[in-house]
Amino acid sequence: MTFKIGLLGLGTVGTGTAEILLSPAMRHPLLQEVEIARVGVRSLDKPRSVALPSQIYTTDLDAIVTDPAIDVVVEVMGGIEPARSLILKAIAHGKHIVTANKAVISRHGSEIFDAANAAGVYVMLEAAVAGGIPVIQPLKQSLSVNHIYQVMGIVNGTTNYILTRMQTEGADFDAVLADAQRLGYAEADPSADVDGQDAADKIAILAALAFGGRVKIDEVYCEGIRHISQADIAYADRLGFVIKLLAIARRDSDPSAQSTHDRVDQLQVRVHPTLLPKHHPLANVNDVYNAILVEGDPIGQVMLFGRGAGKGPTASAVVSDIQNIVAILKANGGASTTLHPLFACIHEHYCTVSPIESLVTRFYARFLTRDMPGVIGRIGTCFGNHNVSLESIVQIGFQDGLAEIVLVTHDVREGDFRAALEQIQSYDEVAEIPSVLRVV
Amino acid sequence: MTFKIGLLGLGTVGTGTAEILLSPAMRHPLLQEVEIARVGVRSLDKPRSVALPSQIYTTDLDAIVTDPAIDVVVEVMGGIEPARSLILKAIAHGKHIVTANKAVISRHGSEIFDAANAAGVYVMLEAAVAGGIPVIQPLKQSLSVNHIYQVMGIVNGTTNYILTRMQTEGADFDAVLADAQRLGYAEADPSADVDGQDAADKIAILAALAFGGRVKIDEVYCEGIRHISQADIAYADRLGFVIKLLAIARRDSDPSAQSTHDRVDQLQVRVHPTLLPKHHPLANVNDVYNAILVEGDPIGQVMLFGRGAGKGPTASAVVSDIQNIVAILKANGGASTTLHPLFACIHEHYCTVSPIESLVTRFYARFLTRDMPGVIGRIGTCFGNHNVSLESIVQIGFQDGLAEIVLVTHDVREGDFRAALEQIQSYDEVAEIPSVLRVV
Repeated sequence: MTFKIGLLGLGTVGTGTAEILLSPAMRHPLLQEVEIARVGVRSLDKPRSVALPSQIYTTDLDAIVTDPAIDVVVEVMGGIEPARSLILKAIAHGKHIVTANKAVISRHGSEIFDAANAAGVYVMLEAAVAGGIPVIQPLKQSLSVNHIYQVMGIVNGTTNYILTRMQTEGADFDAVLADAQRLGYAEADPSADVDGQDAADKIAILAALAFGGRVKIDEVYCEGIRHISQADIAYADRLGFVIKLLAIARRDSDPSAQSTHDRVDQLQVRVHPTLLPKHHPLANVNDVYNAILVEGDPIGQVMLFGRGAGKGPTASAVVSDIQNIVAILKANGGASTTLHPLFACIHEHYCTVSPIESLVTRFYARFLTRDMPGVIGRIGTCFGNHNVSLESIVQIGFQDGLAEIVLVTHDVREGDFRAALEQIQSYDEVAEIPSVLRVV
Repeated sequence: MTFKIGLLGLGTVGTGTAEILLSPAMRHPLLQEVEIARVGVRSLDKPRSVALPSQIYTTDLDAIVTDPAIDVVVEVMGGIEPARSLILKAIAHGKHIVTANKAVISRHGSEIFDAANAAGVYVMLEAAVAGGIPVIQPLKQSLSVNHIYQVMGIVNGTTNYILTRMQTEGADFDAVLADAQRLGYAEADPSADVDGQDAADKIAILAALAFGGRVKIDEVYCEGIRHISQADIAYADRLGFVIKLLAIARRDSDPSAQSTHDRVDQLQVRVHPTLLPKHHPLANVNDVYNAILVEGDPIGQVMLFGRGAGKGPTASAVVSDIQNIVAILKANGGASTTLHPLFACIHEHYCTVSPIESLVTRFYARFLTRDMPGVIGRIGTCFGNHNVSLESIVQIGFQDGLAEIVLVTHDVREGDFRAALEQIQSYDEVAEIPSVLRVV
């Protein structure tokens, strides 16, 4: 049996996908039954590094997604449109979908999965989150027998690379970003990475899988790393922490719901730079590596670690999805059957995402104050009045004639902490509050 | 649809399995269709902590594996017999198998998989290796599109706990082992763990999955940790290493075969304590945690980390296998179809395992010598004559009037190194060679 692939896009990931499929030796024998039948590209004239027959290239992507000979459409073009429309049209024509496109899934996943379920086809997206690391299928299969409490990860390689170099070299954000752009680790417009949106797309997808309900991407709290300074990295280090951009999804505790038979669908879903204790499993995940830590009952902690981007790892994930679809089709002998419940997207309702103000967490904050007696006392009293309990508050040094004060709180409600900060900001003694970061 | 489970054994893992299946809330909805129909136990009188109806207990295990109402037999009794015979009889009666039994699979897997393929049933074993960590299914599915070079892991929690405590507390092996036995982390007879056989069973299973060929357990080189001394841990630390019991399977390079279309089936499969650089991804895996590092093309490095043993993690893996089988049966609508090629065991030939003498690796060795001039020169010359190139050789100190010399080699052939050692041992100046360890 041969299964025919229509490839939309032949950029980095598309090329990597073709390279695997064109060299099936020493891989799973199933791949020998997969054939790249058509490739949709923007220009037929561009020289290509993979040896595919020239007649399979086309600039007419519609012709691929409607071609009756195609079994699986592999969308590796990226961006929202025309990716979204092509995926929907392919589904309408009965094609299974493999995509590496986290943005289209996090924003238009509901529409796409509804269409796929109605058409009885699979939409596979292992490559959309954390590149080659097997995380989507483990969440759907092995880990889904657990009651998952939390999924927490470093899912953006660019920001992890920048933070690692800031940490190890003592360099500033702007300098490292410029270097990362020169080396190709950051894009010319780095905002999707450094402002956290890429990580937000990914944690929305992971949350939906871990907690069995859809998540609206607009409800994901998202804060990037542009404001992380060398001073904060150094103070965090002294306090026993590293700073990482974490993507976190966890069940928000709701004791009244715990006793019911339904899933608890109140979640926290957020992306922000975070102070992480140095002994934490995610603290040693450096450079462009990604890792996802899943915690559940009764499995405890499981961490999946690897390269989260790049041609090879992403293509590995794309081809594993192709192989999964081909395996199911082969096991079914082509017969029309119900969708495999661990590969299909089964949940159709939405989870409720708690507002960030209701988050209970520890905070780190740094203040620049005029050197007047009683400043620490006044700040401490204000936090106390807002129910914010402090673990430590220390005058660390001087900077440009201002005293530098660093504090760490116990677990507090974010809304209370922000209200206190607003009041403290109005004090004459307080010149500036350059950093406020959450602590895990 | 309800799927009926026959559970063989209600010890720790069996109890954990029942606990998950009896509380399906907040887990995958498929589990609500799974019913524990019969439980085979040694004694009907023993009080049980799970609330199963008393009439489903039986001491007649044969009656379970032959019961026409049972869909899946879950073998969590452990040991070779009667587990092996019951599994084979269950297969002959058309039951799918889920097992947590690494010993029966590593020793009798060929017989069991042949029978299962002939009968058209699945044998699932996620729980047999590394407890709750999803590694068996990722190797079969996501990772199998790669050309895997190497699988390397810390797969025995007991020995990792002992080595971690020796490292952090400066304690000796015997003292930590006794304490681990008191705490229940090591068994009264600890030999399967501390002599490496448990890890050997697991790496044989992982090698078969990663490289697509069966491995004979007798051909796995196996060396335990009883001889690891506090002195070696301290010297390793000074040299920038930690000592871990590693299980390693890798393709043995054979350039002539690389060009063929067949898989290269010459493997190294081995278990031994190893000096690991402190920055290595496995070096920070401590206490009872397990981790498996997979390296392949084009994915690069992927590491899977978590609890490798214990009731909850192992039961999570057992139930995930049950769920995988149920999902396939459901997708097929009960129709008789071919086995799903990513869940069945498809390979039937044997890999060739290279003898340990042909291994090329670095070594660490410690010598106690009489303090005579020229000792280091004589040892160095002997290694040179045997083609063993040294990275460093240092007299570290004195112990009981003897000079203590530590050396680290470059990559050398193990056979050459051993031949040199044998000659050096015969020198009058050399009192003892207390430690020889491999270095990654």
